[in-house]
Amino acid sequence: MKVTVQGPARHFRTVTYDTTANEVRLIEQRLLPHSFKIVATKTFTETARAISDMVVRGAGAIGATAAYGLAQGAASFRGKDMARFKRHLQHVHHTLKAARPTAVDPVNAMDEVMRVMCKGHTVEEKQALGIAAAEEFANEDVAHCEAIGRHGAALIKDGMNVLTHCNAGWLAFVDIGSATAPMFEAQRLGRKFHVFCDETRPRCQGATLTAWELAQQGISHQVIADNAAGLLFERGEIDLVIVGSDRTLGRTGEVANKIGTYTKAVLAHRHDVPFYVAIPLSTIDWNLKRGRDIPIEERSENEVLGAWGVLKNGQREYVRVANPTSTAFNPGFDVTPAELITGIITPKGIFAPKDLWRKRELLT
Amino acid sequence: MKVTVQGPARHFRTVTYDTTANEVRLIEQRLLPHSFKIVATKTFTETARAISDMVVRGAGAIGATAAYGLAQGAASFRGKDMARFKRHLQHVHHTLKAARPTAVDPVNAMDEVMRVMCKGHTVEEKQALGIAAAEEFANEDVAHCEAIGRHGAALIKDGMNVLTHCNAGWLAFVDIGSATAPMFEAQRLGRKFHVFCDETRPRCQGATLTAWELAQQGISHQVIADNAAGLLFERGEIDLVIVGSDRTLGRTGEVANKIGTYTKAVLAHRHDVPFYVAIPLSTIDWNLKRGRDIPIEERSENEVLGAWGVLKNGQREYVRVANPTSTAFNPGFDVTPAELITGIITPKGIFAPKDLWRKRELLT
Repeated sequence: MKVTVQGPARHFRTVTYDTTANEVRLIEQRLLPHSFKIVATKTFTETARAISDMVVRGAGAIGATAAYGLAQGAASFRGKDMARFKRHLQHVHHTLKAARPTAVDPVNAMDEVMRVMCKGHTVEEKQALGIAAAEEFANEDVAHCEAIGRHGAALIKDGMNVLTHCNAGWLAFVDIGSATAPMFEAQRLGRKFHVFCDETRPRCQGATLTAWELAQQGISHQVIADNAAGLLFERGEIDLVIVGSDRTLGRTGEVANKIGTYTKAVLAHRHDVPFYVAIPLSTIDWNLKRGRDIPIEERSENEVLGAWGVLKNGQREYVRVANPTSTAFNPGFDVTPAELITGIITPKGIFAPKDLWRKRELLT
Repeated sequence: MKVTVQGPARHFRTVTYDTTANEVRLIEQRLLPHSFKIVATKTFTETARAISDMVVRGAGAIGATAAYGLAQGAASFRGKDMARFKRHLQHVHHTLKAARPTAVDPVNAMDEVMRVMCKGHTVEEKQALGIAAAEEFANEDVAHCEAIGRHGAALIKDGMNVLTHCNAGWLAFVDIGSATAPMFEAQRLGRKFHVFCDETRPRCQGATLTAWELAQQGISHQVIADNAAGLLFERGEIDLVIVGSDRTLGRTGEVANKIGTYTKAVLAHRHDVPFYVAIPLSTIDWNLKRGRDIPIEERSENEVLGAWGVLKNGQREYVRVANPTSTAFNPGFDVTPAELITGIITPKGIFAPKDLWRKRELLT
């Protein structure tokens, strides 16, 4: 990967595509909030690696990245042989899907691109349609997040304290975000509120990315250790929880999201605090029947055994925190049952999790 | 503070006292698990600072440190004027108490030393009695932890997975520990079990100290992010929780312990997993009537905004993790209500939290 832009910046989309170079361009999210860079992936394999290495992360952003990755992979095919092209496309699809097995967005996004490509009669036509479909997918992602913001902003009243976990902000999408969209919209409407931002160990997307987004937006916020929310709930200092989701089951209303989400839902339930999940429609999995069948990635032990950050001199370093002779268990996600979720904020409105299936015609 | 011992070591007490030099000697716990050092505090002010800076931490260890610190402060008094000596002693007591306002152990420990000192008629007699009382306090702490181990080991069956939070191991006491004592005893009895060790952000005492102790002892264990326990509970992979306590209310059975403990108790309750708190008697506060009256320390924001660890070259460094322009909220403790606690493991046996008050004659 090549760095193409450096320096402080705002209002970039998290993922874009350069037709001339057949490159996907991504905000290098692992360097945020300490440094802002855009990297270019030159092949679909590099794009898949950017997903698995978490250069790009978050439901919508990896969806759009996979869509562009598929179009990029299709565009890189040389020749006119349709059978070979289709086999190549299957390989590209498989490679990008395998980069994040828990997430449903890459698959949904690629299915959409595939559907549009079917309309082409030649390899060349299919290649052009793939790129157009990926662009359309990214633009729709932005429009959906704007709609989530409009529906969700009604939940945020003046004086409220809102808890969020991980990053479901604009960095997790192409722009605007899901869990943060209601906050950005409430801010735009002039409401005064405060956000407690779980640091979200082990990768600390809350402390790094969400806090960065909220700070950029001028929204009052504090980072807390994941352990601290219990005390805040107990003191009555959290009025509303909004999180995102990597996969929501349309049949059951179960929500797979960053590890620790389930714990926050249990706490919110105990303290009668509304718990909302903000999602674009692409995150809904209409097929899977049970949350326990969602594959849960186990990630590198080193994420738990240490932390990435910057030294006083600004250099980015990994420090080993844990006992050197100990190992770790590092599941990436957990599943929150529908009973703990007050509502699902979608671009089409807010729904009880159990109502998703009944409303599936509206939501697909 | 002066470093008096360096290098790898085991089977040191966490706190000792050198009569000749009038020095308190402490394992420098902030350097563990990456380096083992013993530091000496030369004055009661230095001893108080070692408590507030967390050179030494954990209920029993800070109790014994305060006991030695009081004896040290008394011994440093020059002269025979009893009125001046008593004023000096009050100042020493106040300084050591203020070092950790949430904890009750330093106060109980110092009260015990004060009680014994009362028997002396001269300053010199009182000074000698103070040192003897502090030594006796430390020896009793070890004996109490051994008794906790004998009672608690019965809870750990072959094949169990045990969750613990923070460090209530031998480093938290003079030796052996409270929450770890049943594990060490079960291990001695030949039982096979596995420990999930919460890393315990923001200071990571679980990942550093508890993991180090368990590794030293050869007990099977894995470090997990504080966020990961929810998934393990949900999968039925935790059979027992044992934690320590900084202060347990004798009147209500409420338990103040490291931030995040309450969350684990809520999860254990939801999943019908037994939740035990192991404590020496000195940790019981018989006066306070309500958990909400326990002062909760707010600690430095930097603990949440970054992490201490070692670089590849072994150098210990702090890295800033969070967005540079964000602030944090960092409460050190939370309070778990009696209804969420299965039992309190004490040196005198295991009690339901609501029974402490009824059994107070046995427990004081």
